[in-house]
Amino acid sequence: MPKVQGNAFYAQSGGVTAVINATACGVIQTARKHKIKVYAGRNGIIGALKEDLIDTSKEPAANIAALKYTPAGAFGSCRYKLKSLTENRAQYERLIEVFNAHDIRYFFYNGGGDSQDTAYKVSQLSVKMGHPITCIGIPKTVDNDLALTDNCPGFGSVAKYVAVSIRECGLDVASMCATSTKVFILEVMGRHAGWIAAAGGLAAEKAGDSPHIILFPEIPFDETAFCAKVKLSVERYGFCSIVVSEGTRYANGALLADSGTKDAFGHTQLGGVAPLLAAKIKQQLGYKYHWAVADFLQRSAGHIASTVDVEQAYAVGQKAVEFALAGKNAVMPIIIRTSNKPYRWKIGDAPLEKVANVEHKMPRHYISRDGFGITKACRDYLQPLVKGEAYPPYKNGLPNYVRLKNVPVRKKLNTPFEV
Amino acid sequence: MPKVQGNAFYAQSGGVTAVINATACGVIQTARKHKIKVYAGRNGIIGALKEDLIDTSKEPAANIAALKYTPAGAFGSCRYKLKSLTENRAQYERLIEVFNAHDIRYFFYNGGGDSQDTAYKVSQLSVKMGHPITCIGIPKTVDNDLALTDNCPGFGSVAKYVAVSIRECGLDVASMCATSTKVFILEVMGRHAGWIAAAGGLAAEKAGDSPHIILFPEIPFDETAFCAKVKLSVERYGFCSIVVSEGTRYANGALLADSGTKDAFGHTQLGGVAPLLAAKIKQQLGYKYHWAVADFLQRSAGHIASTVDVEQAYAVGQKAVEFALAGKNAVMPIIIRTSNKPYRWKIGDAPLEKVANVEHKMPRHYISRDGFGITKACRDYLQPLVKGEAYPPYKNGLPNYVRLKNVPVRKKLNTPFEV
Repeated sequence: MPKVQGNAFYAQSGGVTAVINATACGVIQTARKHKIKVYAGRNGIIGALKEDLIDTSKEPAANIAALKYTPAGAFGSCRYKLKSLTENRAQYERLIEVFNAHDIRYFFYNGGGDSQDTAYKVSQLSVKMGHPITCIGIPKTVDNDLALTDNCPGFGSVAKYVAVSIRECGLDVASMCATSTKVFILEVMGRHAGWIAAAGGLAAEKAGDSPHIILFPEIPFDETAFCAKVKLSVERYGFCSIVVSEGTRYANGALLADSGTKDAFGHTQLGGVAPLLAAKIKQQLGYKYHWAVADFLQRSAGHIASTVDVEQAYAVGQKAVEFALAGKNAVMPIIIRTSNKPYRWKIGDAPLEKVANVEHKMPRHYISRDGFGITKACRDYLQPLVKGEAYPPYKNGLPNYVRLKNVPVRKKLNTPFEV
Repeated sequence: MPKVQGNAFYAQSGGVTAVINATACGVIQTARKHKIKVYAGRNGIIGALKEDLIDTSKEPAANIAALKYTPAGAFGSCRYKLKSLTENRAQYERLIEVFNAHDIRYFFYNGGGDSQDTAYKVSQLSVKMGHPITCIGIPKTVDNDLALTDNCPGFGSVAKYVAVSIRECGLDVASMCATSTKVFILEVMGRHAGWIAAAGGLAAEKAGDSPHIILFPEIPFDETAFCAKVKLSVERYGFCSIVVSEGTRYANGALLADSGTKDAFGHTQLGGVAPLLAAKIKQQLGYKYHWAVADFLQRSAGHIASTVDVEQAYAVGQKAVEFALAGKNAVMPIIIRTSNKPYRWKIGDAPLEKVANVEHKMPRHYISRDGFGITKACRDYLQPLVKGEAYPPYKNGLPNYVRLKNVPVRKKLNTPFEV
């Protein structure tokens, strides 16, 4: 192992998850073991650009340990994609300037495809600028759409939330359908890929179980076929339970969510594909409906996080530090499924340039022929990812999530930077 | 104790909850102990009118025990209010005819205010018709709006769900607010009373905690004051987290949910006060927002049921049978809070005629002076009701809820009855 030198920088990027803090825990606990100080970016990469760093060494060990079961981004995240090198080289140079000022030799960037791209560029530029930095991307996304890794930390927990929820809501509408609600619609995330919606399919173990219909972004919405399937479910089972991805589109590519609902001011910006479908069903079939939009509920549900997901999220953080110390650079830890039954996995690594900006969609053979459900192959893939209940500790009947002190690092540069 | 004779009838009524089956468990287990056979109405009281009864004695003890942690209505519920005696006496006479045919001497009706009224009328009429039936109403409603009982079974679990969820979503938006979403809105149930929305307030333990704003049906919506409060929260804490009751109204009594959102066909029936508020905030303040509508998610969330709620739901079922066997009639078991710190409770009883059709709204002193939050008195009332996590068992990463066999009782009457 090469001589340990310098500090590490860690930042959370993009939409947060139930387990991204478990990754932070893996990074920080492992770095502490190797006597490396971790500075976190306050609100992600913006913290680096503004030299707004958090000294995680000031945080008690118990707080760091508690990150393992605390959802959302403990240091703040951001939606901020660095421009390309040619468009805004100054951003990259600023990062390296800040890293230089604080003797940061390791850059851990925890996010989706864009973040892997940024980490890769920083690694390239830092060499040219004479301050070489070891850059490790760490995967995170509820969308499960990163390339090369078998699955993404964050996905297993949202998958579990959606499957649990549609099972529960299915029991509810089954109870009510004789005289009241006959259709229930749950809208879930996934603008480009249907992984999250697919996870709802785990709830159905035999014919008639909820959900009866899943709508994927990958399958163009066919209103006639959809309404026929709703009618069939109601006639056969008494009710129809539906999971719809927010990214469901018409054959012409237009999002359903953009195509109808208007707010009080005539704007079409509300989103909400669930209410739109509900209205179509009411108009075409006359059934009474209920709908829910899970939104942040699904990705922040630390109270029902998947144990496998928490363990993998921790492991990619831990391995990121170990890879860096072993001299690896410009790589991302990936999850490799070594066995399906029993489920076994290990952490490997992939070059950042191969991960960056590649989208991993659902394979067609994971979606049933009629386009409204998942296949056995899909179920076999998803099933292990939702295993185990990583319950947080409770206090007064509510999860006792940690709130970090987030002590700032004293600034060394005297140059403000506009982001 | 009087000599045990005859069978019992049990039915679930109205919107289901996470714990109404725990009440069914209490009824059936206690009845079994006393060698009384329980017939359940398939889809509630409609099952009695149609002579569509379920023989719970055919159900294995393990299935009955599993009801304690299985959400929704295991025998089916219904939204069906019996007309008044003068309007439709035939309905009541039919009930008594069916009860007579199956030697049913005990009528347990598990529901809200309307159901207590029905139970009361049946008890009165049965005497006149020469087939006296012991009638016990059993409280159930997520709305927590039944009179005389300190709280309603079903409410504690939905309260816990809402408080857990708004705490989690608050952490999410706090992570994102530097560059993205600044406002999060969670829409919850409660058409007439703000108890469920109030429960969200439990998540906030100190200034700045989520939620910053609660909107109650009891407080007329003041758009100017609301927007000012949103702005203040964003300026002070970086974000604003909101719980809104579906029943929030303007000063003129119109529901917000009815007042703006139109679907693709121009209908105003969508509901959804959360998207409406989001649009107002965007228009007035320009903040990026997210919103969720919990709908059935909140009342079917067996995976995060409150232990206190489950225990009370079971206890009212158990006591209903014990009261009936002790010769009480036309009463409802009620929950009596005997001590707040430590929380202690017992089951008492109240006459059905005093419970029926009385609505228990939130007292004004439970709502903060500005109308956007809860007071300490409210917190002290709510806190004990969400205590404990009554986790269900899991299989393959999902709650292993029971599905009963629901074996029908052979019909004895040869007379169809239209409902």
